[in-house]
Amino acid sequence: MAGTDKSRTASISKGPVIILVEPQMGENIGMAARAMLNAQLGDLRLVCPRDGWPNSKSRIAASGADSVINDVQVFESTAEAVADLTRVYAATARPRDMIKPVLTPNSGARDMRRAIAGGEKIGVLFGGERAGLDNNDIALADTVLQAPLNPGFSSLNLGHAVLIISYEWYQSVDETPALQLPEGRTRTATKGELVNFFERLETALDACGFLHVVEKRPIMLRNIRNIFQRANLMEQEVRTLHGIVSCLTRSNADHQR
Amino acid sequence: MAGTDKSRTASISKGPVIILVEPQMGENIGMAARAMLNAQLGDLRLVCPRDGWPNSKSRIAASGADSVINDVQVFESTAEAVADLTRVYAATARPRDMIKPVLTPNSGARDMRRAIAGGEKIGVLFGGERAGLDNNDIALADTVLQAPLNPGFSSLNLGHAVLIISYEWYQSVDETPALQLPEGRTRTATKGELVNFFERLETALDACGFLHVVEKRPIMLRNIRNIFQRANLMEQEVRTLHGIVSCLTRSNADHQR
Repeated sequence: MAGTDKSRTASISKGPVIILVEPQMGENIGMAARAMLNAQLGDLRLVCPRDGWPNSKSRIAASGADSVINDVQVFESTAEAVADLTRVYAATARPRDMIKPVLTPNSGARDMRRAIAGGEKIGVLFGGERAGLDNNDIALADTVLQAPLNPGFSSLNLGHAVLIISYEWYQSVDETPALQLPEGRTRTATKGELVNFFERLETALDACGFLHVVEKRPIMLRNIRNIFQRANLMEQEVRTLHGIVSCLTRSNADHQR
Repeated sequence: MAGTDKSRTASISKGPVIILVEPQMGENIGMAARAMLNAQLGDLRLVCPRDGWPNSKSRIAASGADSVINDVQVFESTAEAVADLTRVYAATARPRDMIKPVLTPNSGARDMRRAIAGGEKIGVLFGGERAGLDNNDIALADTVLQAPLNPGFSSLNLGHAVLIISYEWYQSVDETPALQLPEGRTRTATKGELVNFFERLETALDACGFLHVVEKRPIMLRNIRNIFQRANLMEQEVRTLHGIVSCLTRSNADHQR
């Protein structure tokens, strides 16, 4: 689904800080950065990355999200990484022994939007690959974010977990219409243009004998019109269909000659 | 966000077939399989995978999603891979020169649910890492799925693209409440229990002289009550607070002795 518009700069919105606590694989840090930039997030913090920082594997896996990699900040503890934030979310399976509100990523994204609109500085904690967040990290958070997933296989890669939260964040204000029909240089055909084509086609079909069974003619015409109605034709496509009928008619005439 | 319930089997739902067209890296095939199983999807098809099949890197990256890897089917062309399907979606950036409806992943997931409920067999095409889907592949699809992303950096890894479609598919029927407050072995405190604690605390604060400025006493009491009201306390937590007051009172008495 790549579709970067090269004329646009990869702008960063005022969104949540993403905090990876003791991440292990450099590739996953890079994939997290790439996921973030797809959602206009740019502030990535690492708490005690296993292989130190900078990490060349992260830059390769970020696949162009260099701005995020360049701005990474490293901290020695989760408490230091969240010290300047006013609201913290923990992306984790529900902690069974802690009483803390749990939001889906979708409702969490809307909660984050409200918090930011209210002037809060927010962040989301993600645990490392092996053990996830420990309870002391989760205790620093106000709210848990948990994605509803297959109860028999809820096992997200670290980069995938960051993608889901980043993606929901971006969708929560995106205003792309749910359905679009790209029109290019053309427009939807008017009903007049359609009927004009139908009549032209029907004349041709009468001429070649396709509609010769009189009692079946009305229902066949209806069925043929429905086929083309369902196709939501563009004006340009109607012209193409006229051309097809012309060509077939000519070839038929040649054949009969 | 790992949270597999080991007592549950990784069940597969009747969902879309995922079709990767000329995927290059085995790791990405494995990550796609892992993403799919998180969303209860199990039918993965490959068209001309660069490194052949089976691929040991895919199995490692699938990280336990063995059932998906074991059932992979390989095809020599996209047309063969979709031959048994009645409805095909192409996950790609909008093709500028094709007139085809474009849905967001969210609305696309609901469209898929309707199609499957209507008895259709559906699939989603994803292009390879380097060039994505070509126009001939897209022409085999009924509908394009395009995720709204940062216009200046819309560059999803193949596994990430599969994750977004799979995730939205799963969310479209998931009934997890948007907000949950896990209660464990306790329950939300009643207002009676709260007021009982407030009065106990206020008696202690009167005794130790904290509320000695008479004209400020009412507003301080209100502020203190609001702090604890806001915390949405559980019954067990109210008991903990009683214990804290008891302990502090005792230590205060010891100190004064």
